[in-house]
Amino acid sequence: MKSIFFFKKKRVTLKKLFPKNKILNDFNIENVRSLAQAQKKDISFFDKSNYSSEAQITKAGACITTENLKKYLNKKTYVIIVNNVLYELARVLGMIYSSADIDYPDLTLKKPTIKKYKTVKFGNNVLIGKNVQIGKNSIIGSNSIIEHDVKIGDNCVIGSGVIIKNSIIGDRVVFQDNCKIGLKGFGFIPQKNKNIKFPHVGRVLIYDDVEIGSGCTIDRGSIDDTIIGSNTYLDNQVHIAHNVKIGANCMIAGQVGFAGSTVIGDKVSIGGQAGISGHLKIGKNVKIGGGSGVVKDIDDNQIVMGYPAIPLKNFIKNNKNK
Amino acid sequence: MKSIFFFKKKRVTLKKLFPKNKILNDFNIENVRSLAQAQKKDISFFDKSNYSSEAQITKAGACITTENLKKYLNKKTYVIIVNNVLYELARVLGMIYSSADIDYPDLTLKKPTIKKYKTVKFGNNVLIGKNVQIGKNSIIGSNSIIEHDVKIGDNCVIGSGVIIKNSIIGDRVVFQDNCKIGLKGFGFIPQKNKNIKFPHVGRVLIYDDVEIGSGCTIDRGSIDDTIIGSNTYLDNQVHIAHNVKIGANCMIAGQVGFAGSTVIGDKVSIGGQAGISGHLKIGKNVKIGGGSGVVKDIDDNQIVMGYPAIPLKNFIKNNKNK
Amino acid sequence: MKSIFFFKKKRVTLKKLFPKNKILNDFNIENVRSLAQAQKKDISFFDKSNYSSEAQITKAGACITTENLKKYLNKKTYVIIVNNVLYELARVLGMIYSSADIDYPDLTLKKPTIKKYKTVKFGNNVLIGKNVQIGKNSIIGSNSIIEHDVKIGDNCVIGSGVIIKNSIIGDRVVFQDNCKIGLKGFGFIPQKNKNIKFPHVGRVLIYDDVEIGSGCTIDRGSIDDTIIGSNTYLDNQVHIAHNVKIGANCMIAGQVGFAGSTVIGDKVSIGGQAGISGHLKIGKNVKIGGGSGVVKDIDDNQIVMGYPAIPLKNFIKNNKNK
Repeated sequence: MKSIFFFKKKRVTLKKLFPKNKILNDFNIENVRSLAQAQKKDISFFDKSNYSSEAQITKAGACITTENLKKYLNKKTYVIIVNNVLYELARVLGMIYSSADIDYPDLTLKKPTIKKYKTVKFGNNVLIGKNVQIGKNSIIGSNSIIEHDVKIGDNCVIGSGVIIKNSIIGDRVVFQDNCKIGLKGFGFIPQKNKNIKFPHVGRVLIYDDVEIGSGCTIDRGSIDDTIIGSNTYLDNQVHIAHNVKIGANCMIAGQVGFAGSTVIGDKVSIGGQAGISGHLKIGKNVKIGGGSGVVKDIDDNQIVMGYPAIPLKNFIKNNKNK
Repeated sequence: MKSIFFFKKKRVTLKKLFPKNKILNDFNIENVRSLAQAQKKDISFFDKSNYSSEAQITKAGACITTENLKKYLNKKTYVIIVNNVLYELARVLGMIYSSADIDYPDLTLKKPTIKKYKTVKFGNNVLIGKNVQIGKNSIIGSNSIIEHDVKIGDNCVIGSGVIIKNSIIGDRVVFQDNCKIGLKGFGFIPQKNKNIKFPHVGRVLIYDDVEIGSGCTIDRGSIDDTIIGSNTYLDNQVHIAHNVKIGANCMIAGQVGFAGSTVIGDKVSIGGQAGISGHLKIGKNVKIGGGSGVVKDIDDNQIVMGYPAIPLKNFIKNNKNK
Repeated sequence: MKSIFFFKKKRVTLKKLFPKNKILNDFNIENVRSLAQAQKKDISFFDKSNYSSEAQITKAGACITTENLKKYLNKKTYVIIVNNVLYELARVLGMIYSSADIDYPDLTLKKPTIKKYKTVKFGNNVLIGKNVQIGKNSIIGSNSIIEHDVKIGDNCVIGSGVIIKNSIIGDRVVFQDNCKIGLKGFGFIPQKNKNIKFPHVGRVLIYDDVEIGSGCTIDRGSIDDTIIGSNTYLDNQVHIAHNVKIGANCMIAGQVGFAGSTVIGDKVSIGGQAGISGHLKIGKNVKIGGGSGVVKDIDDNQIVMGYPAIPLKNFIKNNKNK
C-alpha cells in the first residue's frame, strides 16, 4: 500500500519554492514528507520540539523550521528558517500539488464498463473514475462513486450512496450506505478574510475485513495517511479526522469522533459518542466508555470513562452519591 | 405489521444445525425467535438469567443456552448446551438466513413503473426493488432508493437521497433528505482475524405520522424489530441502533444516539446530543436534558440531566458553584 | 441577500386569518415577520416579555400575542389576543405559505442545460430546479441537487451528493460531499395524535469563502434566516438548527451541534462534539473546548469548557485530583 498517488505533482526546484534563500545545491523536490519518512530529494518540516530526535537523524534534503528549532536538525539537511512553519508548508504543498486544497469533484467519472470489471456486481448509476481497480467478486451499490485511482480489494461489499476517493481498500471490507471516505481534512491556516486551505496529499488506507457503518466520514491524511487496521469495526456516524491511525480488531460504536493525528492501538473498544482529542496515543486493549472525552494519552490495558476521561473505578466512585 | 419477511429463509432441521447432539424428535426450524415469542417449531436462545421467567414458560421447540442456565428452562423445550450462546446463535442464523450478515445492496432495483404506482409522485432517478408497496399520494424525492419488499403507507413524503430497506412504514410519515433506514446493526462476535458478523433478520417498523430528520440512521432489529411509535419526531443526525423501541409522541433532538435494545416510553423528550446506553428501560413522560449520558433505567415522569444522567435538580445543585 | 423567496405565498386578508375578530381596517397580509422587521402590511407575533422593547416600537400592522403581553404593544398595531401564540402563528403561516411545513422534494428538477450555465462544470446526474442561478466557474459534483430558486455565487466548489434548497450562497464557498443545506428545521406544536408542523419560510444565507464539511446539516430559518458568516469553516457532521447565526472567521470542529436561534460572534472556535443550546448569545473571540455543553450566554473573549461549560481554568481546577 505504498506506491499509489492521487494528486498531480508538479516538478519544482527548492530554489523556486524559496527564491529569496541562498541555495547552493539546488535540486528537484521529489516529495514532501515527515522527518522520519523523508529521503534525500524530499523536503520536510519541523515545528514542534517533541520531534527533535527525528530531526537529528532525518534524511530530508531540506527542512522548513524556525530559528529556535534549527539547532536540533541534522547537518546534512538544508535548513529553511521561517516564522510560521505550517504557513510555509501549506504554500510549498500548494506549489507542488495544485489540486489538493479542495475536494474538487472528480469529473472523469463514468459508468463502469463490464469488460473491465468482469466479476464485479454493480447497482444502478454507479460512477467510476480513471484507473480505478476493483478486486474479484466485489459488489457496489447504486449511486455510489469511486473516484480516480482508488484501489479496492476482493470480495468487498460497498453499499449505496457511498463515495470513496484517495483511498486504498483491502479485501472483504464492508461499507454501509452513505459512507464518505478519503475527504480532505479540516486543516487550514486562519487568515482574516480568506483562510489558507492546507493541501491534503495523504490517503486513507483500510485494511482487510474492516466494516464501516452508515454515514461515517473518514478524512484522508494531510501529508501522512489515515489508517484503519484489519478487522476493525465502525458503527454508524463515526467521524475520523486526518492522519488518525486505528489499530486492528478495534470496536468503535456510533457517533464517536476522532480529532486529527491520534494513534489508537489494537483491540481498543470505544463506546458511543465518545470523543478522542487530537495528537494522542491510546494503547492496546484500552476500553473507553460511551460519551467519554479523552484528552490525554492512555496506556495499554486501561479502562476509562468520563469527561475528561479518568479510570473507570474513579468515575464510578466520583458519581456514587450524586 | 407482522407477516412481512425481508430475508430468504432456508429450510433446515434442528439435527442439521447441531449434528453432534442426540436429537430424538427432529423438526424443521420455522424461525429463530426470542423466548417470549417463540412457538413450537421455533428455536430460541437464553443467555442472561434476567430472562429466566420467560424461559420457564417459553413455547420454543428448542433453545440454545449454557449449562448454568439450563435449570430455568421449560421441560418441553429441547435444550442445546453450548459455551457461547451468541456465537452459536449467529451460526444458526447464518445457516437459516444466508444473506442477513451484510447489507448486500439490492440488485433488483429499477426505475418505478408509473402503471404500478399511479398516485405516487417520483423525483428523478428513484430506484425501487421487487415487491415494494407504496401507498396513495406518497412522494419520493430524487436519487432515493426503496429496496425489495418495503411497505410504505399513504401520504408519506420521502426526501431525496433517502434509502429504506427491511422496513414497514405507516401513513403520513416524513423522511427528510439522506435518511438511511433498515440498516444492519452493529452486532458481531469478536474474533482475532475476522469477526463473525451477527445476521440481522429483524425489521424497522415506523408508525403513522412520524417525522425523521436529515441524515438519521435507523438500524433494523437483529432478531426482534426496531420500532418508532406514532407521531414521534426525530431531528437531524439521530442514530438508532438495532432493536430499539421508541414510544409514541416522543421528541428526539439533533445528534442523539441510542445503543441497542433500549425501550423508550411514550411522550419522552430528549435534548440534543444525549446518549442512551443499551438494554435500558426509560419510562413515560421522561425528559432527558441535552448532552446527557443515560446509563440506567428511568422511571415514568422523571426529569434528568448530566453525564451520567441524574435528576435535574441534583444536576443544577452540583453545578452551582463551579 | 434580501429579496429572494422560496415559498409560494397566498394573498390573504387579516380578516380571513381571524374571522372571529372584529377588524375595522382590514388589509392584505404582505408577510409574516419578527417585531423588529415587520412593516405596516405585515403580521408579527409577540410571545416573550424579553421582546417588549421591540413590541413598543414595532411597525407591524397586526400582532398575535397574549392578554398578558398586550400592554407592551404599540398603539398603532392591531392586537390579536390568543391563548397559544406559536399555535396561531403556525396556523397563519400555513394559510399564507401552504408548502413550507414539510420538505416536499422539488419535482421541477432537471439535468442542467449547458447553454444556461456556460462556465459551470457539472459532474454526472446533477439535478437543477427552476430559476436556479449559479455563478461563474463554479463546479458541482455528481448526484448533487440544487433545488428551485437557489442562488450560488462564483467559483464555488460543491461536492457530490450535496443537496441545497432555500439558500443563497456567496462566492468561493466549498461544500464537501453529502452536505444537506436549507432543510426544514425541527419545529412543531406537539399534539396528541398528529403534531402541527411549524412552517419554515426562512432561508439559509452562506457568505463568501465559507467551507462546509461532509455530512453537515444546516436547517433554514423558520421566519428569520439561518446565517453562516464569511470565511467560517465547518468540519464534518456538524448540525446547525433553524435561525442560528454564526459570525465571520469561526472554526467549528466535527460533530458540533447548535440548537435553534443561537447567535455566535465572529472569530469563535468550537472544539469537536460540543453542543450549544438554543436562544443563546455567544460573544466574539470565544473559545469553546471540545465536548462542552454550553447552556448560557458567553461574553466576548472567554475560554470555556465542560458540561455545563465553565471558564477553562475552573474546569481544569475541578478535574485536577479526579
